[in-house]
Amino acid sequence: MRGAGCGGRVDDGENAVADLRLTELHGSLTDRALNSMNFLNEVSHHYPDAISLAAGRPTEEFFAVDDLHRYLDLFAEHLRSQGYDEPSVRRTIFQYGRTKGIVHDLVARNLAVDEGIHVDPEAIVVTVGCQEAMVLTLRALRADPSDVLLAVSPTYVGITGAARLLDFPVLPVTEDDDLATVVKAARADGLRPRACYVMPDFANPSGLSLDLDARHELLQVAAEQDLLLIEDNPYGLFPAEGVDRLPTLKALDTERRVVYLGSYAKTGLPGARVGYVVADQTVEAPDGTTGLLADELSKLKSMLTVNTSPVAQAVIGGKLLANDFSLVAANRRERELYAANLRAITDGLAARFPAGEISWTVPSGGFFVVVTVPFGVDDVLLEKSAHEYGVLWTPMGHFYDGDTPIHALRLSCSAVTPAQIEAALNRLAALITDQLP
Amino acid sequence: MRGAGCGGRVDDGENAVADLRLTELHGSLTDRALNSMNFLNEVSHHYPDAISLAAGRPTEEFFAVDDLHRYLDLFAEHLRSQGYDEPSVRRTIFQYGRTKGIVHDLVARNLAVDEGIHVDPEAIVVTVGCQEAMVLTLRALRADPSDVLLAVSPTYVGITGAARLLDFPVLPVTEDDDLATVVKAARADGLRPRACYVMPDFANPSGLSLDLDARHELLQVAAEQDLLLIEDNPYGLFPAEGVDRLPTLKALDTERRVVYLGSYAKTGLPGARVGYVVADQTVEAPDGTTGLLADELSKLKSMLTVNTSPVAQAVIGGKLLANDFSLVAANRRERELYAANLRAITDGLAARFPAGEISWTVPSGGFFVVVTVPFGVDDVLLEKSAHEYGVLWTPMGHFYDGDTPIHALRLSCSAVTPAQIEAALNRLAALITDQLP
Repeated sequence: MRGAGCGGRVDDGENAVADLRLTELHGSLTDRALNSMNFLNEVSHHYPDAISLAAGRPTEEFFAVDDLHRYLDLFAEHLRSQGYDEPSVRRTIFQYGRTKGIVHDLVARNLAVDEGIHVDPEAIVVTVGCQEAMVLTLRALRADPSDVLLAVSPTYVGITGAARLLDFPVLPVTEDDDLATVVKAARADGLRPRACYVMPDFANPSGLSLDLDARHELLQVAAEQDLLLIEDNPYGLFPAEGVDRLPTLKALDTERRVVYLGSYAKTGLPGARVGYVVADQTVEAPDGTTGLLADELSKLKSMLTVNTSPVAQAVIGGKLLANDFSLVAANRRERELYAANLRAITDGLAARFPAGEISWTVPSGGFFVVVTVPFGVDDVLLEKSAHEYGVLWTPMGHFYDGDTPIHALRLSCSAVTPAQIEAALNRLAALITDQLP
Repeated sequence: MRGAGCGGRVDDGENAVADLRLTELHGSLTDRALNSMNFLNEVSHHYPDAISLAAGRPTEEFFAVDDLHRYLDLFAEHLRSQGYDEPSVRRTIFQYGRTKGIVHDLVARNLAVDEGIHVDPEAIVVTVGCQEAMVLTLRALRADPSDVLLAVSPTYVGITGAARLLDFPVLPVTEDDDLATVVKAARADGLRPRACYVMPDFANPSGLSLDLDARHELLQVAAEQDLLLIEDNPYGLFPAEGVDRLPTLKALDTERRVVYLGSYAKTGLPGARVGYVVADQTVEAPDGTTGLLADELSKLKSMLTVNTSPVAQAVIGGKLLANDFSLVAANRRERELYAANLRAITDGLAARFPAGEISWTVPSGGFFVVVTVPFGVDDVLLEKSAHEYGVLWTPMGHFYDGDTPIHALRLSCSAVTPAQIEAALNRLAALITDQLP
């Protein structure tokens, strides 16, 4: 039976005999989306001394191990104040738990306080980070080979990767595209656009935000085209200096058009891996009964991760309790740090390139600045930059489908100090200057 | 565009207007596997006063909130002893982490101490419970519409559910089937059997174990048929009184035929949601380079949950450290409790049915006893049992594909006291006696 090609040995006729062939495993494993993350991680491991303007992880400035103990105790105390006896407190934190989560009510209060979003806690599914929320939502929606997901391009690699895992084709919607036209064209091609993925606030990777009019218009198009919107909002609490936050699509959504994805990785504690999805859409079963989309996502979750670690949820719950449900309040120092760093990057670029040789975005918040240059930016240039110049960044090509060369790179301000930014920009300027014609 | 059927409103012509139709969502959502878990949960919520011999969750007898603090501190201390400075300790526990996990080395030591399994820590992926380990493994293997998964029947509902999520058909292998014959027949039908899922120790739901000869034979068939085995071992540490543990398939596996799934839900702390997969198989890429299957699973994980909560991993890591890497040692009390309960159930059945009206398994360990009765056992009978007799159990039909009526029910010994077992068996005996012809 050897060579029958079914999970078996590979004998290439020479010495090496592998157990499996990559080409016989799921297609996503040879896909760019899944390998780009790996490549970027490898580069940063290979050049540990390079300064990283690539990493989008949150600042580590304010981590304190004691907070974990405090948050756990606060959550246990909260349960007691809700009438839980000691065995129930222990059971809630230690045992398998409710599939939709044990801090859903606290998440709902957080959304009300920080976002003006008012939803039934039953419409919330607490997930293993926002990534699982994406996978659950896409898994529910991808039902037929003609289904496609629309996504604003350039696109966060996490949504592309989640789609690849589910063999869910992604149709990019560029800045210049009219969403309604894209939807109509897809339908004319026999496709079923199931939803459009958007990050309206300080998007990853573009750094761009939708203004209030664009938000209303997007909801209007969604209504006219009978389309769901998947709103992802990891950076909304981090506007730049002097910038006011705008209402999320979900806060403006009166027709349940928006599935809202939430992350506590940047605002709570990344190591808890707790996120959530608000899915208040009603779903009609063949027998005429109606339930919530959240309950369908919960069924999927029961077969994906069973439930989100109650211990991890307790930590996030404790942080919410410690801050009267406001992560705006909890993140005052982080907001200042990111805003100052963002400004240091854009000011630093202006100081180094006064003559307009290159251009860059000046985002109204978030972690990311996109620099456009008059030459191709690819993985080879990144390796050169890491090796010869000691600075890391992300080629924007990683956020586009297709092979069109992209002449831009993404800089992140979140995991560096002001001194590192100055040094990194010096190195980057040297690289860019050496590449200019 | 309304009624175009794409994530839009449903207007049934009367008053109710739902946002989505269930039939337009992924097929798994209307599948028995995903709904059976839900149904069973609902029954137990509806009848909170019924005694549950249905729940397979671990005992809550020894949970202590202080342990969380102790384990977190132990893990932090361990990092310091490994040379981590304070920022690195904080980063490891708080930040996004290594995709394959931060306690992989401790898991490897645990496997060596408790199971005699010796693997490179790099071949381990720490997962969000064993359920994510199943999803990752099945996702990697399911590459083509002709792929099928073999699974010993009756089958754990978690593997069936994971397969449904990935549109991966499951071919049952019954007790009477010869595995090699099933594989050959599937191949003759143009199918690609990718792996066979087995739980060799005190299986859920059958309670049965493979003896040592059967284990060697299974590995032999796998080698001859060029088939991977997926070994799931959540209950192996809980043999009955006087029973010796047998080596796992993975401990006997000299040819990397076995992908080993591990769970810390029953032996560690369910609320941590930490499991793992040992995937030491080599994978050859088209360019001739060879890597580990674990690294391919890691790529998938980066798009499924990014990483397993480092906080939760730290808790499990601390428990491993606290017990010199032996969960056999850590679970002495639990083992005794389960063994005594298991015996109380089988002895209790023998006392109540001395005349052979029904039969039951006498497992050599684990949580589950299967009772065979001379009448149909379905969800209707379960509801009647809950409502009129005040006792819950699981219809064995939930563990079979297809609609053949199954005349058996599963009893679980793990989450009840001896007094509850006595009362529950009295109630169950009344139900059964009333059903007998």
